[in-house]
Amino acid sequence: MGFVTARLSATLEHTMIKKTTPLSTAPYKGVRDFYPRDMAIFNHITDTMRSVAEQFGFEEYQTSLLEPTELYLNKTSAEIVNEQTYTFTDRGDRSVTLRPEMTPSVTRLVAGRRRELPLPLKWYSIPNCFRYERPQKGRVREHWQLNCDIFGDTGVRGEIEIILLAHEIMKAFGARDEMFTIKLNNRTILTDTLTRVASDGGYELDENQTRAILRIMDRKEKLSPEEYANAMQEAVGAEIGRTLIDAHTPERVGAIMAELPSLQAFVALQEELHRLGITNIEHSTELVRGFDYYTGLVFEVFDTSGENTRSLFGGGRYDNLMELFGQEPIPAVGFGMGDTALRDFLETHKLLPSYQSRTTLYIATIGETFAGAEYVAQQLRAQDVSVSVNLGTKKLGEQIKQAESLGIEFLIAVGEDELRSGTFTLKHLPSRSERTVTLDDLAEALFSFEEHA
Amino acid sequence: MGFVTARLSATLEHTMIKKTTPLSTAPYKGVRDFYPRDMAIFNHITDTMRSVAEQFGFEEYQTSLLEPTELYLNKTSAEIVNEQTYTFTDRGDRSVTLRPEMTPSVTRLVAGRRRELPLPLKWYSIPNCFRYERPQKGRVREHWQLNCDIFGDTGVRGEIEIILLAHEIMKAFGARDEMFTIKLNNRTILTDTLTRVASDGGYELDENQTRAILRIMDRKEKLSPEEYANAMQEAVGAEIGRTLIDAHTPERVGAIMAELPSLQAFVALQEELHRLGITNIEHSTELVRGFDYYTGLVFEVFDTSGENTRSLFGGGRYDNLMELFGQEPIPAVGFGMGDTALRDFLETHKLLPSYQSRTTLYIATIGETFAGAEYVAQQLRAQDVSVSVNLGTKKLGEQIKQAESLGIEFLIAVGEDELRSGTFTLKHLPSRSERTVTLDDLAEALFSFEEHA
Repeated sequence: MGFVTARLSATLEHTMIKKTTPLSTAPYKGVRDFYPRDMAIFNHITDTMRSVAEQFGFEEYQTSLLEPTELYLNKTSAEIVNEQTYTFTDRGDRSVTLRPEMTPSVTRLVAGRRRELPLPLKWYSIPNCFRYERPQKGRVREHWQLNCDIFGDTGVRGEIEIILLAHEIMKAFGARDEMFTIKLNNRTILTDTLTRVASDGGYELDENQTRAILRIMDRKEKLSPEEYANAMQEAVGAEIGRTLIDAHTPERVGAIMAELPSLQAFVALQEELHRLGITNIEHSTELVRGFDYYTGLVFEVFDTSGENTRSLFGGGRYDNLMELFGQEPIPAVGFGMGDTALRDFLETHKLLPSYQSRTTLYIATIGETFAGAEYVAQQLRAQDVSVSVNLGTKKLGEQIKQAESLGIEFLIAVGEDELRSGTFTLKHLPSRSERTVTLDDLAEALFSFEEHA
Repeated sequence: MGFVTARLSATLEHTMIKKTTPLSTAPYKGVRDFYPRDMAIFNHITDTMRSVAEQFGFEEYQTSLLEPTELYLNKTSAEIVNEQTYTFTDRGDRSVTLRPEMTPSVTRLVAGRRRELPLPLKWYSIPNCFRYERPQKGRVREHWQLNCDIFGDTGVRGEIEIILLAHEIMKAFGARDEMFTIKLNNRTILTDTLTRVASDGGYELDENQTRAILRIMDRKEKLSPEEYANAMQEAVGAEIGRTLIDAHTPERVGAIMAELPSLQAFVALQEELHRLGITNIEHSTELVRGFDYYTGLVFEVFDTSGENTRSLFGGGRYDNLMELFGQEPIPAVGFGMGDTALRDFLETHKLLPSYQSRTTLYIATIGETFAGAEYVAQQLRAQDVSVSVNLGTKKLGEQIKQAESLGIEFLIAVGEDELRSGTFTLKHLPSRSERTVTLDDLAEALFSFEEHA
């Protein structure tokens, strides 16, 4: 038994030392605390995401935040893996990573049961994801992200539905078409164009060179023209790099693209979206998106107000990620929509609803009537009314203030008289109007009051 | 720019090597994947918890999984901190812990805004928590846990409401009183008794000795009588240890307890609970619970079936945890209810509902009618019907099988004829009954069908 008490004593000593230094009440750097009013906004955001995803028949799944580190070594962007993951070694000497994104995890789930699962699958989840970043507007170290993915051979239909769903979620938040633009591109068009430009210059690009070029193009807006040129030349060699940059004029690229079959399919997708009423889309010829695993369609949604310049969210097609697990590909298309950029957007456009308490009735107590008040509350809860009973020692006036500060609309005060008579004065706090009701009629009175209020 | 491309090349090389070894599709050891059918059960559990907590007027909050390690060094149980936390050093050299429990975090939140928050507070959250344990039944490394806490001077009223709430949640899951017992104790009774036994033997226990004894008592069932005696003597010294063990007979303890004011208050609590209809409670005189921070009431809920012998969940009063932040105490009482033990209980008592898809209608497509089918779906979604449109390339018979395997009840097949006429054959798949409806009547037909089916 020595080990138990040795451990206990060590901890006790530690405790004695530590006890004198008060801890900070701040959360860990870069993550957020959600007090009830913040949580109400968070719930509004995730409830809206969830309800639209389910209207489209998407099924919810969930995985652990912890994943084996190997899951991210291959296909996630180099920037994220090398500089931005939370990775550590566990007590069993395994390397573990807090997921920075959900796509590898959902692919793992599908790969794990590919024989049993009826393809095509439409799946969604709202996981938290971690990235070790310098906190700034719209970027925190932990964010929650709606992920919607379609697995299976769905061709352009899956792409249309994914964009339709993304558009519908924005509408469900109250966003109108003029508030956001969906920028679309197709990586096949990009790589076909690159290949053509290179071969016209007498070069042939291999898969890794193409990938390196796409990564640099993805960072183009963050780089000066000189930095961009240098990065290109370092990545694929000075000669090819210079050829690509020199030949990559809008006219030349436009002429090449016009002939590509991949462009024609992409134009057809846009036409189909127009037919379904999605008109705030545009072809963004240089859009890449920062993940290596995209193989076709990529898209990003932008705020048109000029207030939030980074993309709000985005996604695309990733047909080969199943390779990670040594399996035959299953085509896949999806998107991830983070809560922070979306919240900035909703704030900019004044689309966040005002706070409403989920508690309908506050029962104030006068004297020692707690048990009676709790009994009344139980009768009402059985009728699906949410009721908060006073538990404190404040006077009636202060209890009313408490109810108001909690945003609760209705109040009854329960004293000995009320318990004896079974009759209560129901107060609607915002309007200060009152009504006399019996216990049996209380739930009904609340529902009808709410409709008229 | 050298650093960017150097990093890129390093990753590319790495990528090339890794590519040949397929990854496992298993999750990280000891955590769970929730496929849609598992997720439905998880959602049933958390939705039920959430709805009862909100019926009691509890407000939801949320914190990050990551907390500074210091938060757990003082008041969480020694066993958990020393052996069971996931703790690592981040890229900024901070020691970070994945929360093993929620109580320190919620206390941090309250401490952070104690001047602004209107006490008493009733708060709930359903966080995931991590412990590095050997996986076994009812114990996994990641579990989700409903936490309900009341902060403020609420005396016995807060304790009653917490137990009422815990009881009501069990009822909401369909549990009847004979299926579970709520075992109650009060640490003050325990420490008063210990102090009395020691002083009768001529000894005086300091705070750390008392704490060490409670920790050992908490492990009593896991220890043989010899191990228990040895642990006691090692913790507080051979002499006091022997005195405590010798004097700790049921008769002697009973006689001491009968005179304690703390017992009388505790009996009053039980009487009040009886008055409110909570009768499946019992005083468990040796119940401690494994966290150092409890200061009064402790309780644990047990399955009476004999199938699940560990406690299902529990909680208690912790009046001094605010000390961590160098602040005046705020009395607090609460409980934590984990999803895994609860799920075992619900399975044992056959209280888990059968699976129901959240998607009401499947639209099968015949020929190239996807856009039309999606248009029909959009009309129905606008009327709050959840609709899954076929995206695959299967034939009609296989699409019907797909809908059935997803558990979707209703189906329409959309071909050119249906799109032209606007008339559809609505199939109720479980009963194979059919009805002819127009697009305008479809939503209405689904709702009335559902009521009758």
